[in-house]
Amino acid sequence: MQRYFLPEQTATDTPLVLPATVAHHLVTVLRAQVGTAVEVVLADHQAYQAEVVALTPATITLTAPLTSQVELPVTVTLACGLPKTKEKPELIVQKGTELGAHHFIFFESERSVSHWDAKKVAKKLDRLQKIALGAAEQSHRTWLPTVEYRPNLAAVLKEPADQRLVAWEESAKQGEAAALTQSLTSLQAGQSILALFGPEGGLTSAEVAAMTAAGFQAVGLGPRILRTETAPLYFLAATSYQLELQGNL
Amino acid sequence: MQRYFLPEQTATDTPLVLPATVAHHLVTVLRAQVGTAVEVVLADHQAYQAEVVALTPATITLTAPLTSQVELPVTVTLACGLPKTKEKPELIVQKGTELGAHHFIFFESERSVSHWDAKKVAKKLDRLQKIALGAAEQSHRTWLPTVEYRPNLAAVLKEPADQRLVAWEESAKQGEAAALTQSLTSLQAGQSILALFGPEGGLTSAEVAAMTAAGFQAVGLGPRILRTETAPLYFLAATSYQLELQGNL
Repeated sequence: MQRYFLPEQTATDTPLVLPATVAHHLVTVLRAQVGTAVEVVLADHQAYQAEVVALTPATITLTAPLTSQVELPVTVTLACGLPKTKEKPELIVQKGTELGAHHFIFFESERSVSHWDAKKVAKKLDRLQKIALGAAEQSHRTWLPTVEYRPNLAAVLKEPADQRLVAWEESAKQGEAAALTQSLTSLQAGQSILALFGPEGGLTSAEVAAMTAAGFQAVGLGPRILRTETAPLYFLAATSYQLELQGNL
Repeated sequence: MQRYFLPEQTATDTPLVLPATVAHHLVTVLRAQVGTAVEVVLADHQAYQAEVVALTPATITLTAPLTSQVELPVTVTLACGLPKTKEKPELIVQKGTELGAHHFIFFESERSVSHWDAKKVAKKLDRLQKIALGAAEQSHRTWLPTVEYRPNLAAVLKEPADQRLVAWEESAKQGEAAALTQSLTSLQAGQSILALFGPEGGLTSAEVAAMTAAGFQAVGLGPRILRTETAPLYFLAATSYQLELQGNL
């Protein structure tokens, strides 16, 4: 079933006239007819079953709320040091959205080889936001993830969160395998977690020191060396496994 | 530290003359000198610290075995229905190798849109095997994963394994969230697990029936719909989290 996000609209607006991009996809690309069923997520992060009632302009009515819980029980923000290539942020956002992340922050860390020109930040974020939208629709999320940019680590450290973690490959070597489990199992439903990942060259000792001072907990993600775009995906899958499949929350 | 797989060579061959492709990368690309340190994995799946002792031909001596355990405590085979694009098998092999898989099998399932022409199978496997090699070196594996092809599901069902799982999105809806945890926690060190994933269109009911008859257990991977290339990565991260970070084995 095709799902669309309509973040500007609410259930009281029904019947809902669809925005132009959604109308184009539904009517022109998918060739929907009056009576075609779709799913929509409205401003309240609630999914609804809906039905097309007119084509010009494309209009739907809501038929029933969809009640299944598809969001992680905690709010997850991934903060990623800017990777080298533009493909890697795209992979992180697409796969991270499928795996349940709520917010993405890309920041320039000391060893980031890539830099986002101030003039191009808005365009890059717009492209990543579109990727998040497509992945959220495809994976049937009810939360449309946000994508933001920070010029340096200091700006990331100001982000509020109930738990703040940093993926650190050295921690596995030091026998801290249990740190991630300890962090995840201490979370309560509705809390927030900020997980930070270095770029290809890793984080500098100054950055690690700044994070430690800011209350970040170092966690290992197993004994293999993960690429910068793979580590956030491991983290999200582990979080889902612990909180959704093991049912701790 | 650069790591190379030398699957044809053993510790008793020392000093080791490097194969041409490895010698080219080490000496020409990385500009190694006599005395440069490298890591190698030999036929025994054991990693060694080594040192360059000659450049023409490129030759190393082993200086010490590397004893840290970097492999999953169980042998994991991923069997994936052929995805639509050639990028997806590449992503599965690269990320799956980082995340610890030992064997990859791609098979044509009933809903596979893509087909591998018999004449091209060897070339496609060769390319995927090279991707596995690069990822295994980069992630510091001691096991070089294999990549194979099967023309249909029946050929996959003959694969021996101590546990056989199939990722099935319906199972989450049926409250079987705990099935993956139950499977993983019942494994013993050294056992093998075969995990099967459908292509984009999913598995047909006939395929699911054949798998059930063959003793496959359906497991859910959380409440969000994962793309065909994302589900195996979730499975591997969950397996690592359960068996390596929670330390059940």
